[in-house]
Amino acid sequence: MSSKESHPDHKPTKADLPFATVDLDRARRCGRPEVIFGQGKTAEQINSISNALLEAGQAVLITRTSQDVYDFIKQKHPYAKYHGDALCITMSLDDTESNIPSNPRTICICVAGTSDLPVAEEAAVTAEFYGNKVERVYDVGVAGIHRLLAKQDILDKADVIIAVAGMEGALPSVIAGLVAVPVIAVPTSIGYGANFQGLAALLGMLNACGSGITVVNIDNGFGAGYAASQITQLLIKNTSQD
Amino acid sequence: MSSKESHPDHKPTKADLPFATVDLDRARRCGRPEVIFGQGKTAEQINSISNALLEAGQAVLITRTSQDVYDFIKQKHPYAKYHGDALCITMSLDDTESNIPSNPRTICICVAGTSDLPVAEEAAVTAEFYGNKVERVYDVGVAGIHRLLAKQDILDKADVIIAVAGMEGALPSVIAGLVAVPVIAVPTSIGYGANFQGLAALLGMLNACGSGITVVNIDNGFGAGYAASQITQLLIKNTSQD
Amino acid sequence: MSSKESHPDHKPTKADLPFATVDLDRARRCGRPEVIFGQGKTAEQINSISNALLEAGQAVLITRTSQDVYDFIKQKHPYAKYHGDALCITMSLDDTESNIPSNPRTICICVAGTSDLPVAEEAAVTAEFYGNKVERVYDVGVAGIHRLLAKQDILDKADVIIAVAGMEGALPSVIAGLVAVPVIAVPTSIGYGANFQGLAALLGMLNACGSGITVVNIDNGFGAGYAASQITQLLIKNTSQD
Amino acid sequence: MSSKESHPDHKPTKADLPFATVDLDRARRCGRPEVIFGQGKTAEQINSISNALLEAGQAVLITRTSQDVYDFIKQKHPYAKYHGDALCITMSLDDTESNIPSNPRTICICVAGTSDLPVAEEAAVTAEFYGNKVERVYDVGVAGIHRLLAKQDILDKADVIIAVAGMEGALPSVIAGLVAVPVIAVPTSIGYGANFQGLAALLGMLNACGSGITVVNIDNGFGAGYAASQITQLLIKNTSQD
Amino acid sequence: MSSKESHPDHKPTKADLPFATVDLDRARRCGRPEVIFGQGKTAEQINSISNALLEAGQAVLITRTSQDVYDFIKQKHPYAKYHGDALCITMSLDDTESNIPSNPRTICICVAGTSDLPVAEEAAVTAEFYGNKVERVYDVGVAGIHRLLAKQDILDKADVIIAVAGMEGALPSVIAGLVAVPVIAVPTSIGYGANFQGLAALLGMLNACGSGITVVNIDNGFGAGYAASQITQLLIKNTSQD
Amino acid sequence: MSSKESHPDHKPTKADLPFATVDLDRARRCGRPEVIFGQGKTAEQINSISNALLEAGQAVLITRTSQDVYDFIKQKHPYAKYHGDALCITMSLDDTESNIPSNPRTICICVAGTSDLPVAEEAAVTAEFYGNKVERVYDVGVAGIHRLLAKQDILDKADVIIAVAGMEGALPSVIAGLVAVPVIAVPTSIGYGANFQGLAALLGMLNACGSGITVVNIDNGFGAGYAASQITQLLIKNTSQD
Amino acid sequence: MSSKESHPDHKPTKADLPFATVDLDRARRCGRPEVIFGQGKTAEQINSISNALLEAGQAVLITRTSQDVYDFIKQKHPYAKYHGDALCITMSLDDTESNIPSNPRTICICVAGTSDLPVAEEAAVTAEFYGNKVERVYDVGVAGIHRLLAKQDILDKADVIIAVAGMEGALPSVIAGLVAVPVIAVPTSIGYGANFQGLAALLGMLNACGSGITVVNIDNGFGAGYAASQITQLLIKNTSQD
Amino acid sequence: MSSKESHPDHKPTKADLPFATVDLDRARRCGRPEVIFGQGKTAEQINSISNALLEAGQAVLITRTSQDVYDFIKQKHPYAKYHGDALCITMSLDDTESNIPSNPRTICICVAGTSDLPVAEEAAVTAEFYGNKVERVYDVGVAGIHRLLAKQDILDKADVIIAVAGMEGALPSVIAGLVAVPVIAVPTSIGYGANFQGLAALLGMLNACGSGITVVNIDNGFGAGYAASQITQLLIKNTSQD
Repeated sequence: MSSKESHPDHKPTKADLPFATVDLDRARRCGRPEVIFGQGKTAEQINSISNALLEAGQAVLITRTSQDVYDFIKQKHPYAKYHGDALCITMSLDDTESNIPSNPRTICICVAGTSDLPVAEEAAVTAEFYGNKVERVYDVGVAGIHRLLAKQDILDKADVIIAVAGMEGALPSVIAGLVAVPVIAVPTSIGYGANFQGLAALLGMLNACGSGITVVNIDNGFGAGYAASQITQLLIKNTSQD
Repeated sequence: MSSKESHPDHKPTKADLPFATVDLDRARRCGRPEVIFGQGKTAEQINSISNALLEAGQAVLITRTSQDVYDFIKQKHPYAKYHGDALCITMSLDDTESNIPSNPRTICICVAGTSDLPVAEEAAVTAEFYGNKVERVYDVGVAGIHRLLAKQDILDKADVIIAVAGMEGALPSVIAGLVAVPVIAVPTSIGYGANFQGLAALLGMLNACGSGITVVNIDNGFGAGYAASQITQLLIKNTSQD
Repeated sequence: MSSKESHPDHKPTKADLPFATVDLDRARRCGRPEVIFGQGKTAEQINSISNALLEAGQAVLITRTSQDVYDFIKQKHPYAKYHGDALCITMSLDDTESNIPSNPRTICICVAGTSDLPVAEEAAVTAEFYGNKVERVYDVGVAGIHRLLAKQDILDKADVIIAVAGMEGALPSVIAGLVAVPVIAVPTSIGYGANFQGLAALLGMLNACGSGITVVNIDNGFGAGYAASQITQLLIKNTSQD
Repeated sequence: MSSKESHPDHKPTKADLPFATVDLDRARRCGRPEVIFGQGKTAEQINSISNALLEAGQAVLITRTSQDVYDFIKQKHPYAKYHGDALCITMSLDDTESNIPSNPRTICICVAGTSDLPVAEEAAVTAEFYGNKVERVYDVGVAGIHRLLAKQDILDKADVIIAVAGMEGALPSVIAGLVAVPVIAVPTSIGYGANFQGLAALLGMLNACGSGITVVNIDNGFGAGYAASQITQLLIKNTSQD
Repeated sequence: MSSKESHPDHKPTKADLPFATVDLDRARRCGRPEVIFGQGKTAEQINSISNALLEAGQAVLITRTSQDVYDFIKQKHPYAKYHGDALCITMSLDDTESNIPSNPRTICICVAGTSDLPVAEEAAVTAEFYGNKVERVYDVGVAGIHRLLAKQDILDKADVIIAVAGMEGALPSVIAGLVAVPVIAVPTSIGYGANFQGLAALLGMLNACGSGITVVNIDNGFGAGYAASQITQLLIKNTSQD
Repeated sequence: MSSKESHPDHKPTKADLPFATVDLDRARRCGRPEVIFGQGKTAEQINSISNALLEAGQAVLITRTSQDVYDFIKQKHPYAKYHGDALCITMSLDDTESNIPSNPRTICICVAGTSDLPVAEEAAVTAEFYGNKVERVYDVGVAGIHRLLAKQDILDKADVIIAVAGMEGALPSVIAGLVAVPVIAVPTSIGYGANFQGLAALLGMLNACGSGITVVNIDNGFGAGYAASQITQLLIKNTSQD
Repeated sequence: MSSKESHPDHKPTKADLPFATVDLDRARRCGRPEVIFGQGKTAEQINSISNALLEAGQAVLITRTSQDVYDFIKQKHPYAKYHGDALCITMSLDDTESNIPSNPRTICICVAGTSDLPVAEEAAVTAEFYGNKVERVYDVGVAGIHRLLAKQDILDKADVIIAVAGMEGALPSVIAGLVAVPVIAVPTSIGYGANFQGLAALLGMLNACGSGITVVNIDNGFGAGYAASQITQLLIKNTSQD
Repeated sequence: MSSKESHPDHKPTKADLPFATVDLDRARRCGRPEVIFGQGKTAEQINSISNALLEAGQAVLITRTSQDVYDFIKQKHPYAKYHGDALCITMSLDDTESNIPSNPRTICICVAGTSDLPVAEEAAVTAEFYGNKVERVYDVGVAGIHRLLAKQDILDKADVIIAVAGMEGALPSVIAGLVAVPVIAVPTSIGYGANFQGLAALLGMLNACGSGITVVNIDNGFGAGYAASQITQLLIKNTSQD
């Protein structure tokens, strides 16, 4: 493979900032633009990277950010929108939510407990950012299994399911036994003592007896939303090809 | 408390063998006789301890033993009985199963998968040894939740439930949400990879979101059967007192 | 089992708040009402869930809360009571402590050291909330074994014993050798260095050589109090049935 | 949901063997039949479960099995086929490979090193069992990155990619940066010392900086093949619906 | 630095074998001769090192060895003695046990359970090798605390106590509260499940609430016997100086 | 043993405070009075326990305390003395340091680095509190081995050596090869990254190839000082007996 | 051994401060002067040690320090220079950067992500302090492998490469496959969840399939810079010798 | 960079065997040929890969192999040589040891104990394979520090030092304080109990207070020998360039 052929020079593929090399080519290569991981970055740094992405015509998703960063960004970008529960900011150059297709796919996000909500919302905002319809099924931990069973009809309509749980992380295992679609499990760090900051939930999900579950890092709502979107994007591409 | 009063001298409370101090007083103090942990002991050693217990009028339970040990014991004790699935031997001085009350309590043992059976059977044999009726509910792992829900009527009749599971260990959490009786959770070492020889199941059970679950060591079927028997013994004592 | 039969529609079984699905049916299903885990919830959220429970005629127990939350709750609920050592709030619709039976059972709570007190008190308040008489035996760590032996008479009168210990967590093992009733062990995170936030005590209790000990999560005083209450409830139900 | 409606009685949904409850309804509920985890089961047990599945009209996949088990099974089932590299057996009632659709999807399996082959082949056999076309890209560990880059055209044609790696587990991260389809990562236990039986690869994959990677348990080739098949099945269902 | 100046040449201080540098000077420097750790060494290698030590006039202690090695050694050294329970060999150039003083000190070795015996015996043989009187107090685990309390008089006569325990490792903590002499704790790898090959006992002992306990490595009976001997040697030296 | 005989009633053996049971009998039983672990206790609580000890005629050592607590205590107890480097307070009823014998023994405290000083000073203050002469040998980490070798003469005069080190914890191993007296190793939590809060030093010391080293918990300077004092007390008792 | 003989007295080799023994001889023995680890030291302590080194004619490098310490030092030492990104201070007695040779060697520092910069800069400042030319190649994480491949020419000119990465730590493995010079890997604590404060990256690097990678502690930029300088110093010495 | 330029087509760069892709280009790219990791490969597989390398004109090093494999290889390759202590085979097409330069560099391998020898020999054979002179300094563990100090003159002549140690892994730290050249540390899995298969030594080396130590994986003698050779190769290249 000649790297020349695969990286045509007709537009810039990297924006070199003093502190980062923004990978503008990523949208073409991986199907979706780079996302800004806000944690540990200053408002100024986030703004500069955002500008580089917006100038390349890409919408922006900032995760693990804060109200303070949003207040700074909002002054420069009136269309920026803050998702407080998810600690995310999204924005585009105008006020249209441009990347939502007319015929979206459905990602269902099941959440075990109230404390898992921030992680779940990070997944939800990510999934919506990539043009999916999101169904939220909250507070359906396995200790009251009838709450989950009562939602079977919603589960049945989903293309992909994201299951978010802390504590012992048993939710994905039960869900995987109820549905025929991919289940992406997100362990959260909710718990105490022998939970070891999410290790219990992580190990539980990796050892889930339900077949076909895949797992992302502890508290990685973004990763789950992104992986789910990669699946639904396959479906969308597939439909339009046929 | 004067230790004199509680240790009356009318009968021996210890049998000193060259390799062990058999605690014959334990039955009086803790409500049930000492049990022989067979692992790492020779057939001869097990036989000697058994004799000491039998001579003190106590029935014998040997756990973590083998067919070979049983063959040796059987020659000396025709009433010895081998429980192959549980790797246990039980015996008394005659062929009556003397310690079963006329009105036994019910301990229900729920098991997630086929591979967890040896641990579950160790719990079952222990519970039966202490005079309980045992209900076995096998192969009801949470990945096929309807299998468990179909057994609700059996769960409802139990005085205590023992939930045995390897992998992610989610079974006790679901059961605790379905019943109003104590649930004792036994993690097993069944699994591989990030299971870490039962650690995943152990952590899952310790972090179970279902309230009121208590946990014993990995693969400790005996401990669960013993703890459950301590609860049902309370009930039996209670009834006869009233 | 038909889910219809077991979930009769004559009264609401769930209260859907924006942030939680309160499981009002739990009292019927599991024998006791849902409890509010206060950690990470705002005073407003706790108040809303409390109202939903009170309206369903259920008394309220809030664990892992604070003086600040109590001050907020107290304004709305004059009968609310703060248990400062346990960081718990209890309340009912009037000033009667309605759920205490005329003939309560006794749960003895043994505590190794002064620093373990908050966990022990959480267990004690929980046990009292569920109508038990609680005997406190404090500062009886195994390094001064005579302090524990001097309390044998109190241990002998208990229906269930909860043993709370940090450091090496050896207390339950010694107690289990002195009594004939169930022993529930609670490891605490008290200690430093190779204690690893309670891991040493947890492992010690799971490996206790005393038979029949069951264990709950590190610092989970509520879980121990709840599990102990499930046992005493069996006794009460049993008595009234006979 | 009424459980009655979803479990129509027109055909058996469970086959109760003495040692297992075969979940025959699973194919309907989860889109694919139960699979037999061969490890720790005798040839006789595996044969019995196989018969139950075959009688219910379902093809059979047995994982973690051996030549010995195959020799036993082959005598009863002439159409059984052994996949030695994967330690798997597949069989159906006749010699057609009935579940391969006319228009299969492509799952590409990338493997870091020669030692990872058994895990990769388990994934491959699973994916083929569920009717997928499998592309194998072997020995492309990141220490010789040009070997992987030379396969970009194969990666580009895949619907889903499974990346199998032991050691430091870096392969999925690099692949995720080269493609726009879902990447399922399988850590293997290949390595020594601070590899800790696959822990290093597992942690590496969970922390992969490449977005959208999901992970299965260490050495869980079956899980990856199954999860990938759930994605391609969505595509197939999707196409036929349109 | 020239090693000549600091190590006067009046006798050889090292014996260079092809596979080891025997530190013959150690007896002068550290008060006791080098000991041969037998594990992983061939009978021939052990014999060669033994010869080097014997030729330098030093008695020989070989730990972690076997009957096979002993059979080989015995042929060359008729005075060699095998301690089967401890898996140790001791020998000197003649049949006198030369290093036992006329007025020995007493090291008491307390052992929790029968399975801990090999480790305890390694400590005992080591202590005897260095000229101490050893009192064995076996099978006094904390689950039957009265067995230990009944031995208070033996504990009271010891100069140093070695406490050997597996499982939860609680024995040293209780002993330290009963005596005024140094307590050396030896965790053993006896146990299963969450014992993690002695980790539970090790952590328990390091976190022992009893003051002044010191700990050696898991199963390190030799280390405990050696450390205890260093203390009694101080006493002996002290007495003769006064 | 009758507990009556061993606990003569001529003086109180326990002082029951609302929050603690002070073990006044400990000095008789274990050779030295109880010590107050200051961490997590209020100034008022520490003062009350101190009073109970002082009234029983015992000197007081408070560890893990602070300047603030000292300021409070000083107002009530003019003879209280603060050891700022060690975070300890000592006091007696008058200004004599009553428990120092005329012929003290020498405990040498070797410290690897400047950051380990607080732990080392806790050991030093403890050793002095129990009447020992303390020799401090500071900043002799093994990376500059000549610094330690230059102190051989000081090491040679010690009765017991305490070796304090963080990082890789190699100091005790080297020292044990240079001396003939007991070496007590104290791992500290000094370090970062793969030090894991002292785990590296702890494991290093437990695995020290130098014979006869015993180890206390991470940062447990008090424990080392106490254990060393138990050894020197043996020597003192021994001398006066002869 | 007398330290006099082995350390000739022609110049002081140690400066004894009240809190530290500065090893002035280190530059002769190990080729480079002692460096001050600033963390946990006061500005006054750092200043005193700096003075001792400067008086001995050695340049000073202070790591893990802060702006506050710099402000204090700057008042005393006008030539002190603060490297804010690296949290380092360097200084010499005058304003020449005396230890840079006329013909420096090149150390290339490759960094995976923006968040790893402080660790990378600590390595860079250290390498420059020891007279090397440093090439910085930043933001070349493996998820966008073409960014790294585009820098092959810079890699090719380096004498040693330092690869700094958090998350899964895959960067060194890829680099080692592209170059023929030593690669020193520095794991950083950047990440979250199952990263466990850099453990994932550390294990990844230790298990790197690329041959010849060596690893330093998590976040130990200084260690990597120092080790790289030891290699380039060999080259410089070598050249001048020839 | 155009990949075309750097991968000239004049000779094959890969040999595709059915089970492996031999990277023949590696010698050009990384300075040294690929090495065969023998563990888990059959004699036939090893022979095939060897042939591919030999045919490309490269000498062959096989690590982690056995006498059996050697017996097989020897039949085909009369010049093959077995290094039994190291479990390695080396061979070239004729009987010259072609890759040893006329002016070799010296790598000194220091080893703590006899049991660490196989790992040390793997490093030694690797270093010799790449044309270095190897100095072996064996049995110089830190518990007898004078044994190491006596070898200072050998250390002083080395270009690179490899320090191999199990147990607590303290050797590299001491050596780094004695020399001015790079020290590569190899932890071994020698030890027991809290050694955790080399974890103690690994953590000790990563936290070594001696500056500039770099570390390879547990038991990775090859990796250390390779990394050391990369350093000496720099020196050789450097000399010839000047």
